[in-house]
Amino acid sequence: MAIQKPSIPAGTRDFGPAEMNKRNYIFDTIKSVFRAYGFLPLETPAMENLSTLLGKYGEEGDKLLFRILNSGDFLSKLSPAELTVDNSGKIASKISEKGLRYDLTVPFARYVVQHRNEIVFPFRRYQVQPVWRADRPQKGRYREFYQCDVDIIGSRSLLNEVELIQIVNEVFTRLGVRVTLKINNRKILYGIAETIGHADRMTEITVAIDKLEKIGIDKVNEELLERGISPRAVQELQPILALSGSNREKLKQLSAVIGSSESGRQGIEEVSTILDYTEALEVPLDIELDLSLARGLNYYTGAIFEVKAKDYAIGSICGGGRYDDLTGIFGMPDTSGVGISFGADRIYDVLTGLDLYPSEATQTTKVLLANFGDKGLNASILLLRQLRAAGIASEIYPETAKMKKQMEYANRRAVPFVVLIGDDEVTTQTATVKNMTTGEQGNVPFDKLTDYLK
Amino acid sequence: MAIQKPSIPAGTRDFGPAEMNKRNYIFDTIKSVFRAYGFLPLETPAMENLSTLLGKYGEEGDKLLFRILNSGDFLSKLSPAELTVDNSGKIASKISEKGLRYDLTVPFARYVVQHRNEIVFPFRRYQVQPVWRADRPQKGRYREFYQCDVDIIGSRSLLNEVELIQIVNEVFTRLGVRVTLKINNRKILYGIAETIGHADRMTEITVAIDKLEKIGIDKVNEELLERGISPRAVQELQPILALSGSNREKLKQLSAVIGSSESGRQGIEEVSTILDYTEALEVPLDIELDLSLARGLNYYTGAIFEVKAKDYAIGSICGGGRYDDLTGIFGMPDTSGVGISFGADRIYDVLTGLDLYPSEATQTTKVLLANFGDKGLNASILLLRQLRAAGIASEIYPETAKMKKQMEYANRRAVPFVVLIGDDEVTTQTATVKNMTTGEQGNVPFDKLTDYLK
Repeated sequence: MAIQKPSIPAGTRDFGPAEMNKRNYIFDTIKSVFRAYGFLPLETPAMENLSTLLGKYGEEGDKLLFRILNSGDFLSKLSPAELTVDNSGKIASKISEKGLRYDLTVPFARYVVQHRNEIVFPFRRYQVQPVWRADRPQKGRYREFYQCDVDIIGSRSLLNEVELIQIVNEVFTRLGVRVTLKINNRKILYGIAETIGHADRMTEITVAIDKLEKIGIDKVNEELLERGISPRAVQELQPILALSGSNREKLKQLSAVIGSSESGRQGIEEVSTILDYTEALEVPLDIELDLSLARGLNYYTGAIFEVKAKDYAIGSICGGGRYDDLTGIFGMPDTSGVGISFGADRIYDVLTGLDLYPSEATQTTKVLLANFGDKGLNASILLLRQLRAAGIASEIYPETAKMKKQMEYANRRAVPFVVLIGDDEVTTQTATVKNMTTGEQGNVPFDKLTDYLK
Repeated sequence: MAIQKPSIPAGTRDFGPAEMNKRNYIFDTIKSVFRAYGFLPLETPAMENLSTLLGKYGEEGDKLLFRILNSGDFLSKLSPAELTVDNSGKIASKISEKGLRYDLTVPFARYVVQHRNEIVFPFRRYQVQPVWRADRPQKGRYREFYQCDVDIIGSRSLLNEVELIQIVNEVFTRLGVRVTLKINNRKILYGIAETIGHADRMTEITVAIDKLEKIGIDKVNEELLERGISPRAVQELQPILALSGSNREKLKQLSAVIGSSESGRQGIEEVSTILDYTEALEVPLDIELDLSLARGLNYYTGAIFEVKAKDYAIGSICGGGRYDDLTGIFGMPDTSGVGISFGADRIYDVLTGLDLYPSEATQTTKVLLANFGDKGLNASILLLRQLRAAGIASEIYPETAKMKKQMEYANRRAVPFVVLIGDDEVTTQTATVKNMTTGEQGNVPFDKLTDYLK
């Protein structure tokens, strides 16, 4: 066979040891918070039936699904008439029945419905797995990336929103990242649409508002008019877009404008209750009511969240909200839930950019035993066994190579301690220990070595 | 859209919380041993280029690859003449360029070659990820399953084999599973083939020997004759198949028969050296030289291993060996390595069958705070915050439901402690704590609650 120059598909990545250790630090931190909050782990298959996935992410999403070619003689179900080169769209659905997971939300909804009789509701689950999207690869956008989702389904209580806010606070506190949590409520957005006389156009209004930060108020107004919102309605929207002051002050001003809408009133009350709880709990998190926050996903029905890093310019690093009918599409209506998703790749970029990894997250092997063969080697492998039994990650250089080569290995692997045992050391039962950080070298009796290196 | 009855593809699985906790216990145990031994984590993409995968697993393996359909107008590269319903084989390679990972070994070899200039050799890596095979699903055989691989590449030292043997011992000791490690060496097998005058037929001879345990010696002899091995050679093979006694005795008998083959002599010496080390290290593992162990994969060139559980009937739960040219196919020859792979699914079955999970592996939330609303709720969420800060996994029932419903939730979730705080408890600043295992109920002052539940 011809020799190939190896490579991986565009938009995918290998994670070597240095990246893996940092990524594991992020995943471990997030998961341990999830567990402390009583959430349970779930994993679903990489492949789902296309019938589960199609139509759940909009037309654009359907195109971005990775499809698995049916095994075996996959063309046999087709008639020659169907099989023409310009018929990709129709043929695709006949030669592939499975696709790769596009997010963790739809598989979660599918799981909940499929296992509704075994699940104890309210169901608190977390899920940390990769997802795949056939997006055009570009800087910071990958075709394979991890999502870290946490949801509570089967309860309408706003305490659940408060749980998620506390989780956001706890995760980013542990990671050392200063963040702002933006909060809004779809009911408020509906209340606004209703108040200005365009209840049926909520989606378009919120999409336009969503762009406020990006394109500015003038362009937003322009866009609203272009979309057929009446000039009077756009006028009525202005005080809402210009709300200012503390969260409580904003809620008060808002109440004066949209308080006559039942939905608007409910949304205001929900945000207010959530703020009551976070204040009672003294959650040390910068929470900001932001009416321009809409979030694109149209299954949200109540609270919506988005988290931004204060000291690093990047999109939102976490987001989510409440949905009242996610499972409806699979035949289980009226099951409200709320969830958030942490974006591991962006959090990785933030921690890297701000140099926030603790040394434990980057260190691997602590001790290398050099290898000079003979008696020293026999003593070394016995000491190695002791070190490992004491929980010290350690290894022995497998070959009896030159000192320089072994030291270079320790250096490049960033191993902080090298233990050298030759014939003299065996005679005196004392190891030579070199601290690779300071360059200092000392002698430690064999029977004190484990304690010394601990 | 019509409502669908949700399901997942045949041969794939959802892992709900109970299974996930047990699986995580296995993965965490294996990974922590890998880390203690100085191995570094690696992850590769789920999708590899088909050029990386094809031809690496034999003809049968090629058929079992899951292929990803090219995105967009995937038929446009085909001519109408090529596009016929009986042309699946040829068309497949034109409409799909990527496939799902089939094992972790080929992606590892690809990674090593691709990153050879950054990697510090000898490279010690572990990798725990799912793989996919379009096998016919049946009991115990899945289309998506995890492998846990550990390899050292770039060193011929037999110390590496000894490291892997110690890892096997450590993993199964921690998991509480009594195992036998079977060991053999491909050089011995080649020496046997050479000695009986069929050096060029080693693969066929080893495949036949591999079946010794399954089909018995008579059928093996029959098969050898059928495969064209001479009756004299089959005759000469008999003492080898009938070797008995301790490992050392077997090696001695074997030496007398195949000692004149250079390869055979080397293989015997290698096994002997490995046994020297494991004896010096007093590795408390049942190691058995088994000449009928051949392992199917044809990239092995030296030591081969297989691990079986002593107290549970199931195939091998771990296996591996040394390869001298795994990376050759990607253009990097002469790079010897040795590795083993733990089969997480079978280990899961063994632990389940023998009921070996510790309670920590099955318990999740330790404390549920009941929810009666009002003053009690406010006190409860503050205490909840304290419990979590002390590292106690805990949650609050999100709704102010009836006592019975909340207790049922705690029971079904197997939460061992429920804390009840109503108006009386707030007045006395004393919580009622119910031990769900014993049914006992007691009173604990708020300021002592964290210590009590720790």
